Amino acid sequence: MQTGFIGLGRMGSGMATNLIKAGHEVAVFNRTPSKAAALTAIGAKTARTIAEACRGPAVITMLANDEAVEDVVFGKGGVLASLGKGAIHVSSSTISVALSDRLATAHAASGQRFIAAPGFGRPDAAAARKLFVAAAGEVKAIGEIMPLLDAMGQRVFLLSEKPSIANLVKLSGNFLLGSVIESLGEAIALVSKAGVDRRQYVDFLTSTLFDVPAYKIYGSLIANDSAGPVGFAASLGLKDIKLALAAGEELRVPLPLASLLRDRFLSLFASGGESLDWSAIGKLSMRDSGQS
Amino acid sequence: MQTGFIGLGRMGSGMATNLIKAGHEVAVFNRTPSKAAALTAIGAKTARTIAEACRGPAVITMLANDEAVEDVVFGKGGVLASLGKGAIHVSSSTISVALSDRLATAHAASGQRFIAAPGFGRPDAAAARKLFVAAAGEVKAIGEIMPLLDAMGQRVFLLSEKPSIANLVKLSGNFLLGSVIESLGEAIALVSKAGVDRRQYVDFLTSTLFDVPAYKIYGSLIANDSAGPVGFAASLGLKDIKLALAAGEELRVPLPLASLLRDRFLSLFASGGESLDWSAIGKLSMRDSGQS
Amino acid sequence: MQTGFIGLGRMGSGMATNLIKAGHEVAVFNRTPSKAAALTAIGAKTARTIAEACRGPAVITMLANDEAVEDVVFGKGGVLASLGKGAIHVSSSTISVALSDRLATAHAASGQRFIAAPGFGRPDAAAARKLFVAAAGEVKAIGEIMPLLDAMGQRVFLLSEKPSIANLVKLSGNFLLGSVIESLGEAIALVSKAGVDRRQYVDFLTSTLFDVPAYKIYGSLIANDSAGPVGFAASLGLKDIKLALAAGEELRVPLPLASLLRDRFLSLFASGGESLDWSAIGKLSMRDSGQS
Amino acid sequence: MQTGFIGLGRMGSGMATNLIKAGHEVAVFNRTPSKAAALTAIGAKTARTIAEACRGPAVITMLANDEAVEDVVFGKGGVLASLGKGAIHVSSSTISVALSDRLATAHAASGQRFIAAPGFGRPDAAAARKLFVAAAGEVKAIGEIMPLLDAMGQRVFLLSEKPSIANLVKLSGNFLLGSVIESLGEAIALVSKAGVDRRQYVDFLTSTLFDVPAYKIYGSLIANDSAGPVGFAASLGLKDIKLALAAGEELRVPLPLASLLRDRFLSLFASGGESLDWSAIGKLSMRDSGQS
Repeated sequence: MQTGFIGLGRMGSGMATNLIKAGHEVAVFNRTPSKAAALTAIGAKTARTIAEACRGPAVITMLANDEAVEDVVFGKGGVLASLGKGAIHVSSSTISVALSDRLATAHAASGQRFIAAPGFGRPDAAAARKLFVAAAGEVKAIGEIMPLLDAMGQRVFLLSEKPSIANLVKLSGNFLLGSVIESLGEAIALVSKAGVDRRQYVDFLTSTLFDVPAYKIYGSLIANDSAGPVGFAASLGLKDIKLALAAGEELRVPLPLASLLRDRFLSLFASGGESLDWSAIGKLSMRDSGQS
Repeated sequence: MQTGFIGLGRMGSGMATNLIKAGHEVAVFNRTPSKAAALTAIGAKTARTIAEACRGPAVITMLANDEAVEDVVFGKGGVLASLGKGAIHVSSSTISVALSDRLATAHAASGQRFIAAPGFGRPDAAAARKLFVAAAGEVKAIGEIMPLLDAMGQRVFLLSEKPSIANLVKLSGNFLLGSVIESLGEAIALVSKAGVDRRQYVDFLTSTLFDVPAYKIYGSLIANDSAGPVGFAASLGLKDIKLALAAGEELRVPLPLASLLRDRFLSLFASGGESLDWSAIGKLSMRDSGQS
Repeated sequence: MQTGFIGLGRMGSGMATNLIKAGHEVAVFNRTPSKAAALTAIGAKTARTIAEACRGPAVITMLANDEAVEDVVFGKGGVLASLGKGAIHVSSSTISVALSDRLATAHAASGQRFIAAPGFGRPDAAAARKLFVAAAGEVKAIGEIMPLLDAMGQRVFLLSEKPSIANLVKLSGNFLLGSVIESLGEAIALVSKAGVDRRQYVDFLTSTLFDVPAYKIYGSLIANDSAGPVGFAASLGLKDIKLALAAGEELRVPLPLASLLRDRFLSLFASGGESLDWSAIGKLSMRDSGQS
Repeated sequence: MQTGFIGLGRMGSGMATNLIKAGHEVAVFNRTPSKAAALTAIGAKTARTIAEACRGPAVITMLANDEAVEDVVFGKGGVLASLGKGAIHVSSSTISVALSDRLATAHAASGQRFIAAPGFGRPDAAAARKLFVAAAGEVKAIGEIMPLLDAMGQRVFLLSEKPSIANLVKLSGNFLLGSVIESLGEAIALVSKAGVDRRQYVDFLTSTLFDVPAYKIYGSLIANDSAGPVGFAASLGLKDIKLALAAGEELRVPLPLASLLRDRFLSLFASGGESLDWSAIGKLSMRDSGQS
């Protein structure tokens, strides 16, 4: 199937690679063109403009935040202006519920279709085609692009006919992961100060109650003395917690644990940790208990 | 192997049953003698006093809280007074770090040995021999009672030579489970108010990021409209969170998420929920967002 | 002195009245013209457009939120387009730090001057000329409009040459008042459940440690069974706490107590309390402790 | 009037001094006898034992915590054993509601009377006879000791016939003061990071909305770079917040702001701040925002 792909960051590169490997004809576009090289080497076409990425029946966007999506979609020569009638915009970015609603309305007004399909997983999962893809939007449209979604993840879920529900569920998922980080951070600080080896403790937890990647990955990152590789930057973590809080605000749902996470991020940023992996907020309990 | 077993509540009954099934010679004691009937029916001996349960090389206690353990151990005719020299008291109850330290000291002073070996899992896991047993204390003593520990759980972990470390780790585990409940409660309230079916949401989460019993059990309990069966009473949940906070206080470790859980329990109790399953605190986010 | 006055809500009406009483020549403008009647009756001129309110050396705006100020200032025929060279826009609204910075830049670019001068106090204080006015901006400009500021409050403070500092201080003040409400709410719920009469308790507190209007007003409102008069709507309270949190976010300052207040407001709104006086969040502790 | 006085710490010394100045016949007792010297110099009698301090119609205790009061009252040769029939024990210490209830019961069983009469104020207020005294217990007994209470404070309040109500109100008062500290700490951190002078900000606040000693004292202590004099040690601050939380737990009243304060104290203690003035928790917001 023919598709455009816009946004070749840590996640997008892996997703686009899997599309190409699955035999799809992919036209890639990135603001920083150099990132496209690795993909053209394995068969991608290079789109020099957004419009060139929008010539087929579908275009996938995988961008960092609301602002980037707004630029790419609503900007001059953007997706909205370039996509054909009936063509489908598949948004995999983690964006606000409000923007997702706005995109759905705008595409409908332009005779285009809009699907939200964020993936759950870190960059290595994206590269290994291990993402869980949560899709929402018109069922028929999802059916048409299913070959693309299938190529990007290990399993596709249909959540709702309303696209923004997929975005809300994605935000709730990142909130749950942030909660895992916070709870592990507190638990590790507690037992560590009593003399328990942090890594053995995480091994114990993840061999018993929490034998699941989220606890293994974040437990290990928190237990290690040194900062680990950045799978998901803290600046993006705060962005997502803020979007979850904003969704809660709109819906009148207090989220005290999300508020705690927000304050943790600000405390991390105040000491210069914006570009660390977001699991760094889990280390603040060590600092607050005088262990650092 | 010969052993006494004191405390035949929801957890203790299953554990003692598995000891008998594994061929051990078990003398059971319970304050309310009627609870022993099911066990004597499958081969347990009935101890009419604590002393009668303490005549062998080991006695296991599985009681509700610090007060019950203090009564049974330090009371007149209790474990401390009854156990032979060199015999081993295996405490599986979830008790405070401070009491565990006190038990270790008292047993040593009486020429006895003390092992803390709490199990991780709910009553059905205890019945199915699916507990994870976290043991701490003298390595040689743990070796001697290993056949007992093996019979009660699916796997035994040696955490430390200091018994109370096992209790601290157990408390940290219950804190982590409480955090799972709180985070699920907030996430479910958020998506539910946007129109997502609560049970389908939990299915999605536990098919993807959180494919692990803790999230399945508590997600399901929170998502259901009606109160579920009581695997672990809220009153015990608050007890454990308080013990975790007390351990943190002793060690100078702030635990803001544990503080949030404590307040949740009090709010639940204020509306009469002490005897519900502790997952009921996860439903408070529904109430606070006007959904109940 | 000649001045325009835009925004005749609860606060603005009192402030404009005092300007007229002090002998200033005031041209009042309000979206809903009927609100101007009481003021024209005592000598105000009616401005039919924003432009008509901007013909003198100064115009004061006292509006509900950022959106209203943006409309009035940046909209077609707005303050920015209407005010003369060198004239002064005095913004008394409680707005975001970001918008205040933007207003300062825009007015400077138009050859106009901008002063932020929010007042501290509720509508009755505004009516009684009891406001404390916190002014920030160019010292010379503040000097020129001092007769206006003097007429509106009991005392004027010069905080900074940077206008948005006055807005930040105003937001911090409302955060402190919100904290008073929350702390009183918890304290009252605590002693009330032990049988202490709530009103007597507030009398005791405000005769001793807290003999100051904020504690008297909010203590009394919280202690009363019925909802009191609306001096400051909860919807505005949340707006200000959000602006304080946004300022903290920009500056990397975690504000856990402000986060707690935010969640309180959402819980209040979920049960329909948007239009109550903001002290209603102080009654949530009664509800959470099963008293209400 | 003749009275004993037990406990000559920072608060007790000032209170006993004022009793003597008012002409009362005071027999002082302190564990560390040297502290009595200043008082005997102005006319106090030295009691060599607790019993010697209990020979008159009343004895006042002003001790650091529950443990000290339990020792002094229930210990061998303690107040309970020494006080005559009908004599009155006036407890001014900040103790738990539970201990106060226990004291009331024990004294009644011994034919003695018990009044709780904690004072509100810091050591300088105690020395200057500026305390507010909150008394609770049998009205007739309070009447008999009124000359003593009058001599120790600027005003006496009768709160309840149940002594422990005075202790609960005292704990609630310290919770409110702790909340003042936390809210000021956050507000100061916020404006300080925007460039506002911390002391000028406190001056502004306490000249306007918060013209009351609590805000002046704590605002000034927080705004200053150096640690100030210790009027009330952080270790005592945590003790009182814990007692407030314990009272809330008993009554089923969640106190999220008190939980936040508790965590602040633990964080302070983890970095060695136990013996600082309790206002030091207000400086943690500076640290958490990278300002230290």
